[in-house]
Amino acid sequence: MTAASPQLQPLPERSKLDPLQALVEADMQRVNQLIVARLDSPIRLIPELAGHLVAAGGKRVRPMLTLITAQLCGYRGDRHIRLAAAVEFIHSATLLHDDVVDQSDLRRGRATANAIWGNKPAVLVGDFLFARAFQLMVEDGSLEVLAVLANASAVIAEGEVAQLMTANDAKTTESSYLEVVRGKTATLFAAAAEIGALVAERPAAEAAALRDYGLNLGIAFQLTDDVLDYSAREVVLGKSLGDDFRDGKITLPVVLAYARGGAEERHFWRRTLEQVEQSEGDFGHAIELLERRSALSDSLARAADYGTAARATLAGFPPSAPKQALLDLVDFCIERAY
Amino acid sequence: MTAASPQLQPLPERSKLDPLQALVEADMQRVNQLIVARLDSPIRLIPELAGHLVAAGGKRVRPMLTLITAQLCGYRGDRHIRLAAAVEFIHSATLLHDDVVDQSDLRRGRATANAIWGNKPAVLVGDFLFARAFQLMVEDGSLEVLAVLANASAVIAEGEVAQLMTANDAKTTESSYLEVVRGKTATLFAAAAEIGALVAERPAAEAAALRDYGLNLGIAFQLTDDVLDYSAREVVLGKSLGDDFRDGKITLPVVLAYARGGAEERHFWRRTLEQVEQSEGDFGHAIELLERRSALSDSLARAADYGTAARATLAGFPPSAPKQALLDLVDFCIERAY
Repeated sequence: MTAASPQLQPLPERSKLDPLQALVEADMQRVNQLIVARLDSPIRLIPELAGHLVAAGGKRVRPMLTLITAQLCGYRGDRHIRLAAAVEFIHSATLLHDDVVDQSDLRRGRATANAIWGNKPAVLVGDFLFARAFQLMVEDGSLEVLAVLANASAVIAEGEVAQLMTANDAKTTESSYLEVVRGKTATLFAAAAEIGALVAERPAAEAAALRDYGLNLGIAFQLTDDVLDYSAREVVLGKSLGDDFRDGKITLPVVLAYARGGAEERHFWRRTLEQVEQSEGDFGHAIELLERRSALSDSLARAADYGTAARATLAGFPPSAPKQALLDLVDFCIERAY
Repeated sequence: MTAASPQLQPLPERSKLDPLQALVEADMQRVNQLIVARLDSPIRLIPELAGHLVAAGGKRVRPMLTLITAQLCGYRGDRHIRLAAAVEFIHSATLLHDDVVDQSDLRRGRATANAIWGNKPAVLVGDFLFARAFQLMVEDGSLEVLAVLANASAVIAEGEVAQLMTANDAKTTESSYLEVVRGKTATLFAAAAEIGALVAERPAAEAAALRDYGLNLGIAFQLTDDVLDYSAREVVLGKSLGDDFRDGKITLPVVLAYARGGAEERHFWRRTLEQVEQSEGDFGHAIELLERRSALSDSLARAADYGTAARATLAGFPPSAPKQALLDLVDFCIERAY
């Protein structure tokens, strides 16, 4: 309506994603059309609720991984479209189920599908999306791909349950937290990236390399996300600040700060994250403690290590535009926190 | 410990199930072992929570259908064991998700897994079971079976969402209620029965007949269940009386009584089931109104009609012990209400 304000200029960290988005643009349009078509159901609440989630959008990093790895492997067919949609359906289903709240969490009042329609519709629509994902895979007809995504689904569920068990436990160790991240986030990244090699019928070593790429990228992505929850760039990132803190979620920055903190600091973390007794000023104090213990910068350093590992998995692939896009994607995932 | 009391004698309606249970006993033991093995996970809450559900047991009618139809079709291999376990996993996942409660329902306080562990663990363990079901199907390796159960899963989710939308709406029509029953209950019965023909590689007409058998049996089963919720034989059936009423669930007896009732009766149904404002004596009055409008007996008559249809689908199969067991199963499902 009015002239664009300076804040609406493309952000520096988005430019890293531009070549990748350009490479997959045509494919992604087909994926989006397929998603919309398969959300349809005579039960009107299903497209309505699922459409809310899909419209909320995000960058569709997971299906993008399937599309770009298929290109990297020189794939020329259509199978990656359907499978990228299946990956996004699985991701959407887990988002809906991850947002299920028990009574104690109702204070959050976020505009999630669950908050708007209630837990139960969100759970059942999530089930529908999960079933749709498997229908798409059955249409694709590869038992190999079905195995990858069925196994991933089981591991994701295990990771989500493991996260519940570490939630509100400030004594969570770094290694058990990383185990959770592998399951709940990195496994689907790994599967999405591997599928590109599978549809192209590339040798097992290439599929394994892309799987490792996805796994390491997923961990880097999640650790960066954890840091962003305590950083001050809400508007830029479209993620609301402090969600993890308010939910009493134990993430890597907290794990590090707790391990390094004195008695008084540990008492603070236990009160705010274990008992979830929080009052004004607590979130600011949390950031202060995280900075005092170098917990944010060290978490980012850890993310950067996983990013380096992700890049290394691509060493065997000859230079190409898709390869460069995958390398840039690592930078994008990590640099959005700086 | 003491001599068995007379109430613990075998009930007459269970005897109809005895020949079927004897026929599948050895197979069912293998199914149970497989279920226990596949419930295992390093995340301890998973076998714990899922074990609670599995121990609560029930008669395992759905996997039994796969086992007995495989026998009916002369199948001699092992595939039906794994697929019966997959069917039971899908059923268990839907039970966990169906018990998700929103704030307004928390008063129920049943000893469901959800009530004990909370909604979120139950949802995530349900997801794990669903994923495990697909892993079992992938191991089986038949895309045909995968298609049947992936499609069934989507239809079940649609039926569950449709049920939510008719919940608390006393004006629900008989046909829209039957649509819900087809989805949420009968579709998995149909898939379970069809799989027996698929593993035996029987002609499509036989698979279709068994599918129809399962569909009609499932509807008869659910309508009988609806009536049982208003009958007085709680102890015998291990189902607690009045659950549907307390939840404001609209089932066939209510649909019929509402349609046939006068203004005062409709006002009663709207207060108790739409607004879910209930006080002592309301449940007794509900039963009175249902009887006044012949809603329970007519619902049973409808169940009997579906039972007749189920029996008719078996006409093409030559006489055999499994066939007789399937015919008896129809009687069992219907007669438990008398």
